[in-house]
Amino acid sequence: MSNIREVAKRAGVSIATVSRAFTNPDKVSQSSLKKVMDAVDEVGYRPNMMARNFRSTKSYAVVVLVPDFANLFFSKVIRAIQETGQKHGYNILLGETRDSKEREADYLKLVETRQADGVIQLSPHIPEQELLPHPHISAVAACGACDTPYASVRMDHIAASFSIVNYLISMGHRKIGCISGLSDNPHSRDRLKGYKQALAKAGIDFDDSLLYEGNFTMQSGHDAGVYFAQLSQRPTAVFSMNDLMAVGAIKSFKEHNIRVPQDISITGFDDLDFATYTDPALTTIRQPAEEMGKKAMLLLLQILDGKPPTQQEFILKHEFVLRDSVVQFSG
Amino acid sequence: MSNIREVAKRAGVSIATVSRAFTNPDKVSQSSLKKVMDAVDEVGYRPNMMARNFRSTKSYAVVVLVPDFANLFFSKVIRAIQETGQKHGYNILLGETRDSKEREADYLKLVETRQADGVIQLSPHIPEQELLPHPHISAVAACGACDTPYASVRMDHIAASFSIVNYLISMGHRKIGCISGLSDNPHSRDRLKGYKQALAKAGIDFDDSLLYEGNFTMQSGHDAGVYFAQLSQRPTAVFSMNDLMAVGAIKSFKEHNIRVPQDISITGFDDLDFATYTDPALTTIRQPAEEMGKKAMLLLLQILDGKPPTQQEFILKHEFVLRDSVVQFSG
Repeated sequence: MSNIREVAKRAGVSIATVSRAFTNPDKVSQSSLKKVMDAVDEVGYRPNMMARNFRSTKSYAVVVLVPDFANLFFSKVIRAIQETGQKHGYNILLGETRDSKEREADYLKLVETRQADGVIQLSPHIPEQELLPHPHISAVAACGACDTPYASVRMDHIAASFSIVNYLISMGHRKIGCISGLSDNPHSRDRLKGYKQALAKAGIDFDDSLLYEGNFTMQSGHDAGVYFAQLSQRPTAVFSMNDLMAVGAIKSFKEHNIRVPQDISITGFDDLDFATYTDPALTTIRQPAEEMGKKAMLLLLQILDGKPPTQQEFILKHEFVLRDSVVQFSG
Repeated sequence: MSNIREVAKRAGVSIATVSRAFTNPDKVSQSSLKKVMDAVDEVGYRPNMMARNFRSTKSYAVVVLVPDFANLFFSKVIRAIQETGQKHGYNILLGETRDSKEREADYLKLVETRQADGVIQLSPHIPEQELLPHPHISAVAACGACDTPYASVRMDHIAASFSIVNYLISMGHRKIGCISGLSDNPHSRDRLKGYKQALAKAGIDFDDSLLYEGNFTMQSGHDAGVYFAQLSQRPTAVFSMNDLMAVGAIKSFKEHNIRVPQDISITGFDDLDFATYTDPALTTIRQPAEEMGKKAMLLLLQILDGKPPTQQEFILKHEFVLRDSVVQFSG
């Protein structure tokens, strides 16, 4: 690999000038700067970025904490974070946490030890187990729930759940099952609030036997489907707290010869790409995944730039997506 | 943040000893090492890893080039790479390339500028557009095709495709459609070879009108389904080169009132988690995703450690997964 000496020689300037051209270009004349950059191209010189980073005390990397790589919802958010980061010269270090606080702590050490400049947390904040906020770590939450105690970009899960359960009620359903995520997950809590609020508004009593606790995987949705299929008083519709569990539930309804949506309606949450490919296509809530990822990265860049956010929470709009998985109840 | 001076004071040893404990622990006595480590815990000292990395000229990061974050097959491979890397003190820098050679070049610069030590390439090698192998970059290919000119961990796509098409033939099908990926993708080429070999072995002429070129997305599988549905002489079975396209094709067959598998059989490739949740569940080829990710990372660590691989190619076993998407043809 060529070195700074060759660049200086080729450019006809001093080594100090070449060095300054990289570290402090404002102090180099335009003509010298051009000579240096041309020479860099000609000799194929690559400055040692790690040395640059070391001097600047910035690593130009951001850690993204992801609960589950196999959840396509996060893939969309990560893609948006990465594209936005790349435009601003930042790389993404990705860490899968799988709900382990030990793993999270390991990844946060990357910031403490200056291998990354900040963190974007995709897991919702759980107060009892908090690692963030941390006085020495710049962090932004994306895809979180309410009550996140640091800068947060999210949607309103209560309102979204309310609207979709309200839609089921408007279609004549009164016996509405719910497949939740783990009960201590803040998203589960928010979405359950929305479900209960919609029932209350319609004067429907909350029935504990219609609530099944899953964990956001297809397998747990399948288990929920088995549970509902075997109830003596089956619900006529099911509100699933994500698309993946809805897919699992649909599969098990079919295995029990329960037709979807003719015998049971179902709704999802997220609007993953395959929500149009399920049979029937899923009526669901579209989370603004790309927008949340982009906004979270921009917010973190702003914080790293020393400018505190103007507001603690940025709430982006979700969308109600009507497809084929719900029919009017005519019992 | 506490510093090395406090650690030395607390441990009752010299600053040089503390430094050596981090950089060259073999040269520190067991009793001093214990004192230092206890003091580190007590004062909450975090060494500046970037400074350590700078001195050691290693960054302890590996770049993984991923064609598409939204493809769940890669999620599985990445998870295995990350877990293996973490066990060996390496972080993963993830770059989505989306088939752009410019993006790949950007990520390779991370190695050239020493922000990462090596690369794991998840895109198959395309000779005409090669960026790798590169004399200054340690790289391993995972999930590649044959003829990769650097260390490669893969499965045998020709043999796998042969076996699944051969199975369709054994079930009485002779008019077998094929949904391929982009024709210049090496996986498409390998899998097409397997398809053609199975036809040839059974004495079936290759029919160009039964080959539809997709791009490995659900949408392109849906388009392929429309194409086959409208053929005057429809195939009785379809070999799809991945599960995602099979999902799309099933959707469009149903839209055309073509029953799967009664009217048309279909097979996938990959065995994604949802292959058991499609309707019908997919008969497919299971790629050894986790094993490929793990082996690729171990191989790269070995290369970074200065030990050249003992062989150029490591071919891991695939598995034939029998489910419900194929029936005997009784035309």
